[in-house]
Amino acid sequence: MSQKIRAAAEAGQGDASEALVQQPSIYLFSPAGAVQDRTRITKAAKTLRAAHCEVAVDSAAGARMMRFAGSDEERAAAFARAAVSGMDVALATRGGYGMHRLMHRLDFKRLAKSKVQWVGMSDFTAFSLGMLSQGGCAPTWSGPLATDQFAADERDDVTLEAFLEAMRGELEAVGFLNTRPAAKSLDIKGTLWGGNLCVLTSLLGTRFFPEIKGGILFLEDVGEHPYRIERMLLQLLHAGVLASQKAIVLGHFTQFKPVPNDRGFKLKTVIDFVQSQIKAPILTGLPAGHVPTVLTLPIGRRTRLLAEGRDAFLVWEHRH
Amino acid sequence: MSQKIRAAAEAGQGDASEALVQQPSIYLFSPAGAVQDRTRITKAAKTLRAAHCEVAVDSAAGARMMRFAGSDEERAAAFARAAVSGMDVALATRGGYGMHRLMHRLDFKRLAKSKVQWVGMSDFTAFSLGMLSQGGCAPTWSGPLATDQFAADERDDVTLEAFLEAMRGELEAVGFLNTRPAAKSLDIKGTLWGGNLCVLTSLLGTRFFPEIKGGILFLEDVGEHPYRIERMLLQLLHAGVLASQKAIVLGHFTQFKPVPNDRGFKLKTVIDFVQSQIKAPILTGLPAGHVPTVLTLPIGRRTRLLAEGRDAFLVWEHRH
Repeated sequence: MSQKIRAAAEAGQGDASEALVQQPSIYLFSPAGAVQDRTRITKAAKTLRAAHCEVAVDSAAGARMMRFAGSDEERAAAFARAAVSGMDVALATRGGYGMHRLMHRLDFKRLAKSKVQWVGMSDFTAFSLGMLSQGGCAPTWSGPLATDQFAADERDDVTLEAFLEAMRGELEAVGFLNTRPAAKSLDIKGTLWGGNLCVLTSLLGTRFFPEIKGGILFLEDVGEHPYRIERMLLQLLHAGVLASQKAIVLGHFTQFKPVPNDRGFKLKTVIDFVQSQIKAPILTGLPAGHVPTVLTLPIGRRTRLLAEGRDAFLVWEHRH
Repeated sequence: MSQKIRAAAEAGQGDASEALVQQPSIYLFSPAGAVQDRTRITKAAKTLRAAHCEVAVDSAAGARMMRFAGSDEERAAAFARAAVSGMDVALATRGGYGMHRLMHRLDFKRLAKSKVQWVGMSDFTAFSLGMLSQGGCAPTWSGPLATDQFAADERDDVTLEAFLEAMRGELEAVGFLNTRPAAKSLDIKGTLWGGNLCVLTSLLGTRFFPEIKGGILFLEDVGEHPYRIERMLLQLLHAGVLASQKAIVLGHFTQFKPVPNDRGFKLKTVIDFVQSQIKAPILTGLPAGHVPTVLTLPIGRRTRLLAEGRDAFLVWEHRH
């Protein structure tokens, strides 16, 4: 690792050894899929309280209407309650499916006026991108989901630490092992944005898809066969989105089933093919996706991407 | 069935009793997925020859490169060969995945100058819509795929008859049982377009998505859970596509697995929800999709849609 990269990374690292820092207060709410096992909400709250966070649980967090956490009206109202809760962070209980029913119901501009930091991933990507396109620079984050990451008995401490440090404004850099190193080192700046590939492409052609030029686009997905991942990436290519980014950073693409007809067609084929179509470098190995350890990454924040060999760092700027 | 509907339907019906009509000549080619069992191409050709069609098979119809029917160059070249083949019809052997890799390679305007009628479905929807958006009014059809519909020992005669009559320009109307009848009868005119929902939405935001106002949009899909069907329909809604159509006609949505979390959320929930968001009526029951009997429907043709109770008809205009 070069001196420059090490310095940039260390400048952004919080000091995790402080035990008695002021932890963020957290509002748990359910924007999309119903939480099938409601005790997981209680468990997640317990984990966060054990980390010295004040926790409030939205009145409809455990609601159910078919596969949704309550009716569209109820879930839209939960956003409004989170915005005026006075808490530091509004953390989604889980993803699933449901944001798309709310997109045209949410008053993004009004929600953006709240000081709350919105955190979630997967289906929640739709909210983050809706906010980025409609609400301006309100703070949303791609990060953990309460019942996925914080309700397990064997939870991942790195995920929790990174989340809390990011919420406290201390963490401003994350390093990862770039599993697809380029010959040339990289030092670029751009808007960090992205999330779940399938949810992100499901907003293309609508007003909820943000127009980010010169950005650093990160993507992950779960349960999608490589041919579908390629089809989505080609949609982004043909829409001009990939060509206007400075870098593409891929997280994990998990839980898909290869079929005999693939005959050697795999995720690497897809990445190599897409790379052959664009100039911006594609990096891989970002700890984001449906995996045990997930980073908490700011959406829409001006960010520096440094890479040399297998070492890569994202360093984002302070909010002003 | 009213007098008006019956008259319109009968005016468009070909006379299937003529045995010695001049049948179309057919060029079989592979635009997307590799045909795993090449004997199916021979079987399909045999079926069409038995129906008195002249058949030519593209030199790369049985090619293989990973999951594709040859490299991107080979498959793009197959389109060019089909265009200058002098045959009446270019029929895709199968769908799969592959068109998206070719979209920016194909010279749609040049292909559109050919007199050949392009036929296929599923992944081939991308070609039809690319042609409609880039090539103008060249004749493409949503119809059978040679190795899916014509290679089976127990083939579906209705599918074959309808395909041949459409290619001869005799069939100009199809009737179907509208399984979602409205109280009001319907008599509208618009551009008929559509195809596979997933492939169609995968073009949104790109130059290959046609801008059709006041159209009749038909959609089908296979292997997509209702929540994914809804997400795609909501993308079309938020992109303004659904609101600018005069009617939405749904074909079959097959081979998806409900999950316990659905708790009553099903395809009907999706259709009712989308209907609550738009004024244009949604009809269902069109024989299109991954089912034994498929219609051959013109893409981009001015079409009349008549519906009364459970009787529905699509009557398209002659090409001039």
